Amino acid sequence: MNATAGAAEINRLATDEADFDRRLDALLDWEGVSNQAVQARVNEILEAVKIRGDAAVIEATNRFDRLSATAMHELTLAPERLEQAFNNLPDEQRDALAAAAERVRRYHQRQKPESWQYTETDGTVLGQQVMPLDRAGIYVPGGKAAYPSSVLMNAIPARVAGVREIVMVVPTPDGVVSELVLAAAYLAGVDHVFTIGGAQAVAALAYGTETVPRVDKIVGPGNIYVATAKRAVFGRVGIDMIAGPSEILIVADGGTDPDWLAMDLFSQAEHDEDAQAILVSWDKAQLDAVAASIERLLPTLERERIVRTSLGSRGALIHCASEAEAVALINRVAPEHLELSVADPERWLPEVRHAGAIFMGRYTAEALGDYCAGPNHVLPTSGTARFSSPLGVYDFQKRSSLIHCSADGASALGEVAAVLARGESLSAHARSAEYRQKR
Amino acid sequence: MNATAGAAEINRLATDEADFDRRLDALLDWEGVSNQAVQARVNEILEAVKIRGDAAVIEATNRFDRLSATAMHELTLAPERLEQAFNNLPDEQRDALAAAAERVRRYHQRQKPESWQYTETDGTVLGQQVMPLDRAGIYVPGGKAAYPSSVLMNAIPARVAGVREIVMVVPTPDGVVSELVLAAAYLAGVDHVFTIGGAQAVAALAYGTETVPRVDKIVGPGNIYVATAKRAVFGRVGIDMIAGPSEILIVADGGTDPDWLAMDLFSQAEHDEDAQAILVSWDKAQLDAVAASIERLLPTLERERIVRTSLGSRGALIHCASEAEAVALINRVAPEHLELSVADPERWLPEVRHAGAIFMGRYTAEALGDYCAGPNHVLPTSGTARFSSPLGVYDFQKRSSLIHCSADGASALGEVAAVLARGESLSAHARSAEYRQKR
Repeated sequence: MNATAGAAEINRLATDEADFDRRLDALLDWEGVSNQAVQARVNEILEAVKIRGDAAVIEATNRFDRLSATAMHELTLAPERLEQAFNNLPDEQRDALAAAAERVRRYHQRQKPESWQYTETDGTVLGQQVMPLDRAGIYVPGGKAAYPSSVLMNAIPARVAGVREIVMVVPTPDGVVSELVLAAAYLAGVDHVFTIGGAQAVAALAYGTETVPRVDKIVGPGNIYVATAKRAVFGRVGIDMIAGPSEILIVADGGTDPDWLAMDLFSQAEHDEDAQAILVSWDKAQLDAVAASIERLLPTLERERIVRTSLGSRGALIHCASEAEAVALINRVAPEHLELSVADPERWLPEVRHAGAIFMGRYTAEALGDYCAGPNHVLPTSGTARFSSPLGVYDFQKRSSLIHCSADGASALGEVAAVLARGESLSAHARSAEYRQKR
Repeated sequence: MNATAGAAEINRLATDEADFDRRLDALLDWEGVSNQAVQARVNEILEAVKIRGDAAVIEATNRFDRLSATAMHELTLAPERLEQAFNNLPDEQRDALAAAAERVRRYHQRQKPESWQYTETDGTVLGQQVMPLDRAGIYVPGGKAAYPSSVLMNAIPARVAGVREIVMVVPTPDGVVSELVLAAAYLAGVDHVFTIGGAQAVAALAYGTETVPRVDKIVGPGNIYVATAKRAVFGRVGIDMIAGPSEILIVADGGTDPDWLAMDLFSQAEHDEDAQAILVSWDKAQLDAVAASIERLLPTLERERIVRTSLGSRGALIHCASEAEAVALINRVAPEHLELSVADPERWLPEVRHAGAIFMGRYTAEALGDYCAGPNHVLPTSGTARFSSPLGVYDFQKRSSLIHCSADGASALGEVAAVLARGESLSAHARSAEYRQKR
């Protein structure tokens, strides 16, 4: 949609319009396009790094990031370099980063699953042992979308989980390094930083090279090449969700300052042109007031052009008939961010089945959650909140089942197991169980 | 490897041999091969089902399972059909299945993560809300590998999690139905059963058709077409790990009856030719005794041919120098099943970093865990225990972060957020936070 002067800044929809479903579906529609050309290029890079290691990583990095490295040590940042970045920050930034890190750490410590077991009457012990991953790889985008907050949000849960080694990769196109990103890596306790990106960085983390240690899981967002590479190496290593554009759904009951709501929509829309900001209300006057605030405030934004494009193409003010319709919309959209800008948000919780993070009440701007409230800002996008969760400590741990049968327990269970095993024509299973039966 | 008479039944390795690392790596090496031809065929089927729904599902099913269905109701099993299958089972099987289901249910109930929250001194509330998925899809292989125990292991955790609807797909090549599989579906509380399989079933579950409801996550093992389809739809729906061949690593201290250990190895090897059974001990006499038991017992096995192939190509008896070396081998292999056939298995637990399930002590045959001990038998294979967990209740739930700032909390957090947001050039984020600051 063209952002011509005078055009509506944001789409207006109403649930009672005949084509509402179609229009909403069209707005929500998003599929990360990974065509065969992209897949072929990614496969080539993965194969090259798998076979030729560092040499292939260096070649690809020089080519895509326009560098001229001759050895991996030129693409490696020493711990001292990270510490220096942190120490050289302006006081205000250093303090803010440290305050955010501390809150994020505190929240995630509450989230840590523990091992458990129980003993049955015959002495058989059952349970699960929770262990951290050995090594986690964190992909941090470079260039214009270099976000220190993302470094904290990815690395701190890994550290809280007890991961032994955290390996970060961050491309530096044209040699541009973000000091804030390095400072955040220092603060979060990242162990290794390589200034590489793209499919070649994903390959290095998944297969390992002479220099880059092989990791057990790769997390963090990236462009279509990174996403395609992550999908391809899934199984050899763990990966997190493949992220789409960021989105917010705000539900307002009419009692929130329309300027606040407009700015909350802007804060989502300013991420990029594909970001999605939707406001839902049964109060038409509130929607009109927000539309007026949008019109008035848009020209004051630094990223006005991006916000205009995003709101015009993917944003919406939706008028619905009732609270119940608003709840239905929430669960249909399954938004990454849900802002419940209503008088009594607790009352809504049991009805909210799908949302990445829920920002409750008029004071809880989503921006607080992006930086420092404590919960993770890596959240399921594009409706994947239907089946996935915020990044958390649990993403950097895994479980082993524990089974310790007593002699009595093994005897009793052996009887059941033998019957079922023979039903599946697996007689060695049956005999293995029967050996432990008391005669 | 040919299973010619007189050939060694199983590979013998020792950690002090010069080429041990190479030989072990060769034995462990496994990569599910999904070549471009398979990917292209799968993509074609996915696309057809996405666009043409039921019609495409019926066509593919007729073609691959050699059926002649004309409508989806011929590929749908009514709840009464499942109940009938259960009621018609021989008493012994019905009781064994019910006993197993009850134990699996009881274990998984202990595993259920709960919502949590805490309140900070300024009144800000933080937490996580745990919710079940709306709909889960369970893929059950048909034909020779139709396992009722897998139906229980996949469906019961979903039911315990509170999933609203469970949709099962199971192919019936040449019209062959497993009554035990249907009985297990009845017992586990599966809501819908469609007799479809392959990539077409995965597509139907991921996209939905006129008849098959779209699900939020697809779990369960399948052949290379199923695995390739699951990888392709990942992101649109959740999926579980992509399973490789089943494996066991047994550590024996010399005190276990060698016939028991041989039968435990057989019970793994009888699954299929690619299954892997490895025994590790620092007691050479124990390894020799097990080798003799293998030779003596092999001819008594119903699935002798499969076991011979599996042990000959992928099985091993490994002599190591010490307990410490055995631990190192465990963590290097990261086995799906680990049997600690030793005197004091508890002592080993803190050192075992990677294993899907740990069977502790001489009485705990792995076969007990396959059927009825309680823990899930869907476990990470091919070393993926480094980063993934047994299937569990947590796979059928997801979390939403909760953030409810008090006015004071929002004011304090707004200061930190605004500094960090401006550091990332996201000034609408900063202003959105600043609106909530007290002046």
